Amino acid sequence: MSDLARALLNPRRIALIGASADAARLTARPQRYLRRHGFDGTLFPVNPRAPEVLGEPAHASLHDIPGPIDFAYILLGTDAVEAQIEACAARRIPVACVLADGFAEAGTEGAARQARVLAAARAGGVRLLGPNSMGVVNLHARTALTTNAALEAESLPAGRVALVSQSGSMMGALLSRGAARGLGFSHLVGTGNEADLTAGEVASLLLDEPEVDVVALFLEAIRAPEALAAAARKAHALGKPIVAVKLGRSPFGAELATSHTGALAGSDAAAEAFLHAHGILRVTMLEALLELPPLLAGRRAPAHAHRAIGVMTTTGGGGALAIDALGVLGVEARRPDATAAAALDAAALPHHGRLLDMTLAGTRPERVMAGLAALRAAGDTDLVLAVVGSSAQFRPHDAVAGIVEAAKLPGKPVAAFLAPQAEASLRLLAEAGIAAFRTPEGAADAIRAFCDWRAPREAPAVDPPTVTLTGAPDEAEARALFAALGLPSDAAVMGNDPPPGLRYPVALKILSPDIAHKTEIGGVMLDIADEAALRAAAAAMRARIAAAAPAARVTGLLVQPMARGLAEAILGFRRDPEVGPVVLLGAGGVASELHRDIALRLAPVDAEEAHAMIAEVRALKPLAGWRNLPRGDLDALARAVVAISRLAAVQAVAEAEINPLIIGREGEGVTLADALLVPSRAPAPVAG
Amino acid sequence: MSDLARALLNPRRIALIGASADAARLTARPQRYLRRHGFDGTLFPVNPRAPEVLGEPAHASLHDIPGPIDFAYILLGTDAVEAQIEACAARRIPVACVLADGFAEAGTEGAARQARVLAAARAGGVRLLGPNSMGVVNLHARTALTTNAALEAESLPAGRVALVSQSGSMMGALLSRGAARGLGFSHLVGTGNEADLTAGEVASLLLDEPEVDVVALFLEAIRAPEALAAAARKAHALGKPIVAVKLGRSPFGAELATSHTGALAGSDAAAEAFLHAHGILRVTMLEALLELPPLLAGRRAPAHAHRAIGVMTTTGGGGALAIDALGVLGVEARRPDATAAAALDAAALPHHGRLLDMTLAGTRPERVMAGLAALRAAGDTDLVLAVVGSSAQFRPHDAVAGIVEAAKLPGKPVAAFLAPQAEASLRLLAEAGIAAFRTPEGAADAIRAFCDWRAPREAPAVDPPTVTLTGAPDEAEARALFAALGLPSDAAVMGNDPPPGLRYPVALKILSPDIAHKTEIGGVMLDIADEAALRAAAAAMRARIAAAAPAARVTGLLVQPMARGLAEAILGFRRDPEVGPVVLLGAGGVASELHRDIALRLAPVDAEEAHAMIAEVRALKPLAGWRNLPRGDLDALARAVVAISRLAAVQAVAEAEINPLIIGREGEGVTLADALLVPSRAPAPVAG
Repeated sequence: MSDLARALLNPRRIALIGASADAARLTARPQRYLRRHGFDGTLFPVNPRAPEVLGEPAHASLHDIPGPIDFAYILLGTDAVEAQIEACAARRIPVACVLADGFAEAGTEGAARQARVLAAARAGGVRLLGPNSMGVVNLHARTALTTNAALEAESLPAGRVALVSQSGSMMGALLSRGAARGLGFSHLVGTGNEADLTAGEVASLLLDEPEVDVVALFLEAIRAPEALAAAARKAHALGKPIVAVKLGRSPFGAELATSHTGALAGSDAAAEAFLHAHGILRVTMLEALLELPPLLAGRRAPAHAHRAIGVMTTTGGGGALAIDALGVLGVEARRPDATAAAALDAAALPHHGRLLDMTLAGTRPERVMAGLAALRAAGDTDLVLAVVGSSAQFRPHDAVAGIVEAAKLPGKPVAAFLAPQAEASLRLLAEAGIAAFRTPEGAADAIRAFCDWRAPREAPAVDPPTVTLTGAPDEAEARALFAALGLPSDAAVMGNDPPPGLRYPVALKILSPDIAHKTEIGGVMLDIADEAALRAAAAAMRARIAAAAPAARVTGLLVQPMARGLAEAILGFRRDPEVGPVVLLGAGGVASELHRDIALRLAPVDAEEAHAMIAEVRALKPLAGWRNLPRGDLDALARAVVAISRLAAVQAVAEAEINPLIIGREGEGVTLADALLVPSRAPAPVAG
Repeated sequence: MSDLARALLNPRRIALIGASADAARLTARPQRYLRRHGFDGTLFPVNPRAPEVLGEPAHASLHDIPGPIDFAYILLGTDAVEAQIEACAARRIPVACVLADGFAEAGTEGAARQARVLAAARAGGVRLLGPNSMGVVNLHARTALTTNAALEAESLPAGRVALVSQSGSMMGALLSRGAARGLGFSHLVGTGNEADLTAGEVASLLLDEPEVDVVALFLEAIRAPEALAAAARKAHALGKPIVAVKLGRSPFGAELATSHTGALAGSDAAAEAFLHAHGILRVTMLEALLELPPLLAGRRAPAHAHRAIGVMTTTGGGGALAIDALGVLGVEARRPDATAAAALDAAALPHHGRLLDMTLAGTRPERVMAGLAALRAAGDTDLVLAVVGSSAQFRPHDAVAGIVEAAKLPGKPVAAFLAPQAEASLRLLAEAGIAAFRTPEGAADAIRAFCDWRAPREAPAVDPPTVTLTGAPDEAEARALFAALGLPSDAAVMGNDPPPGLRYPVALKILSPDIAHKTEIGGVMLDIADEAALRAAAAAMRARIAAAAPAARVTGLLVQPMARGLAEAILGFRRDPEVGPVVLLGAGGVASELHRDIALRLAPVDAEEAHAMIAEVRALKPLAGWRNLPRGDLDALARAVVAISRLAAVQAVAEAEINPLIIGREGEGVTLADALLVPSRAPAPVAG
């Protein structure tokens, strides 16, 4: 265990700065909770107005505490925090946690205050948890170092799932909901505003702990994507999966998460791409965050995923309900393949259709075990789900025994959904380490995440071209850069004379860093038939622009053969404020917006990922030979996606868009009909 | 109470045919449960092999029972059912319930068996519940006439929600889940296969019961849409809402519901349209079926719905979670309007943004009450949601007191979502009749249904045209019928001479009941420039068809001016196997299929509904003036939708489609580029 991990997750000498002597107050909670839950280390309440706090000797200041301190929990108000961080620095305390809010989430002034606190911590070598943090709970070490009211509980089960939550209140909500089900946590860490320690870094520390099998994250924002990506790679290497709820799926939620924690909101599609690319399972339902971990413990992302499962049930209606909920999320309850069918026949279990209905075969544990074992033999499913009816309510031991036995077999996981109210069965399954779902929707959400789970993707290496962009790059500059990245363009810059060997008809466009909307002022002409017409068009265009925008610098004229493809697409690149560079492919025209028909990935991508993106854009489906329609040049499109995604390595570029990108028939390539480049405002100093 | 209602819902003299003397057996359950839960009427166990069953005198047959019988529960196997129904008829028993399965859900043989049983019941004046029914529970009358294991519970709370469930096991699952939360039922009725009594008719009977405020339905299929529609109208008239879960949202679920209960599967969009049109609230989550009713009790569908709510929270993270879940479903957490803001200011409650966060203002009941009351004052929201944090877990009375007070105010409803595990608070809220949600997703699902709730829609009256369709109507016949319904077409049938006054260019099509794919054999020509060309084209086409399809009857040639509109749409009509006639409007070309971009309603519709459909089709958004694009003739499109929807009254038509329907600019109307009509196989004898 690193020094930081020890101080943060298992502190033995703790200062509680501002601990109240009034047991009813919020600031008295950490001391009460630590002692109630059996912490046997040393506490130093810091309170200048009381010689003793809740029966333990108090100190007037940090300065007065004898000996080293592992962890200081600053319980004072917002204005007092900065001075206390300086005091922590003076005492060389490795970790300080700040409860107060009123920092980055509270406007400009709060952000400045947070910056000062962070600077003080960094200068003094203090790692900062928070501000706006509800502290740290280590249930195995009985360390309840928190103000969270959920610790009022008399006792709490210790488990093997560590929770990192940016929201303090959701930390408590998850703790209490888990405890009621026998789903215990190993640690709970409230990271709050994450001025210094972020969810990613804390997750990395937790992954090293021997008591941790799975890390669960409750995220309002992704603040340090690199740290989180590093944690995800470590999670994969150690076989300790990470599962997350991330707010911001709706615009309202995104807005609120931002104002609530002072984070920058990115797009949810970008967050989704980030989590998926790094092998972090994202669930959308709160309860699924509690219910999924047992399914993941000790597993790595499966090599082959079918988005299909086998389902056994002892209740027809409950089975149908689960299958419907799964189907809505795109997970198929698949009928047994030949192998599974043979195993079912051998066990004399009648089967037909998508549901192995045991209501006739009998629900004795050995029958259930045989049914589940047979379904597990299928070669085309990712998981087997047992749906249990009324027996789960009244005969819990019988109801779960067959599931527990089947889940012990190596290989494909077994999970359960219990249709009736069935606390005892849920608890037995939790004890056996089997994922058990209380609702069909939670089961579907978690199983969908499991079927979509992939190992962290390695970003392809990109050797960035050496480019120097002008402050306001014109389209020719954009095309030159795209060509350097592997996406050539057949447009040429012309002066007074048309370039030789041009394939007519052509399009002609004005090049000017000062003209944003070319069409509006006559800066675009299409379908120019021949060289003579081109000369005339060029002269007329120059004259028009000189009259309409006399101040605009004209850097030239762009001429390009007209292209007629099978379809149009939008291909874009940008730097998401949360997760960084992303590449986006969408349906052409207004369809990408009207139908939200886009595919988005972290950039850069390789050809395989680009093809996966193409397959996701519904409007491009006809180009793949759908209904015998002519095939498009999807290989060329994939190469274009790869090329544009390589802009990730070109720090000077903030944003780029090709709209439309015209997709020709197979072998005919793609054509950039229009191209746009937005340079970074303040180019990063790093290579690129 | 009607005689049927008394016999079905409150029987006093019950025959249990096949009641087992072995208390451990399934067929002993009704007797055990009736006595356990305090039934004080008379039971007649029918068992030829035992003089006494579970301490009560048994009878060898129905025939031997003295005096009248209200209700017979047939617990015998599939093969014995028919004879017992005949015995019930002989004894003039008004209601017989059949537990056995092996009927319509079990293939052709089972369906024939079910038909025989139904015929016997009808012949004898016996109303049939089931087969495959788990019986009837009336908790106020302590009548637990069921085999459902959920009745093993020692005691069950009686409430004011009646449940009708096609699935027996889900009846038990809902009962047990409700009981654990203090959410009781008044009645539970298992309708099973619904050979005779359907969910709609049973719901109608339940609505008359004074103990019922809300009827909840668990549906696998809609079997008698007219009965259900009648129940919905009655529900609206009585102010006793109906809420439903309906399986079949995914294709897998639809397939399974069909095989499970022997129903015909319609499309989910049609079921959705049916439920919405009749003012039945549809929820998608199992728990929402339990959680929503308190919100509905005593209410009618609101006249104005905003799809927006006010949200107060005592937990920042929990509030954000709820707002995000609501936003995903399209319900906006709206910032207080001027009225609400003034009320908040008057109560000295600081507010900014979408969430009234009480963490600073204090969570004392009177503060919570003041906050909720102020939010209720907003003129642009449908409901106010209170999100409660840790206080719900540890100080339930304090946590709910303010909510309970606010909910007593007349007008806009108040609901609650509790972030932590908080059984006591959930129970207190249930006792106070306040809708309380255990999960943010359940809250969002139920609130979305509430915001979408509309009063039952009256279908516009249609005076059907008198039509006699040929067995295989050609396109001219289709167009003539559409014109009679109010959608004229500018196509004309030509013989050898072009019709006078034609606007060129025109399209020419062969008319033949024998040619399905006109284009493939040269039966379609476009862009014919003038009369001479048309004559030539017509001659050439006749010759081509004579050569390619010498046996095809050619009924003429159809000629139509070429139309260039702003957009294309698909307009269709069909009779859904579950819910009957529906009209469908979709994006043109492959978009409706690729993007599932369609709007569907029960037919017929009026102009207002047609405009609502147009607004739902995303691809048609540009025609409404989006981004200053030219406007389309949406009034003409709405008239076309209304006209085609009137096919509902023309029983001779099974299906119709106009694809594409070309939408011109404002004032330019719409053009039927192609029209298709499918006659009903067996024309219904009723008018049309």
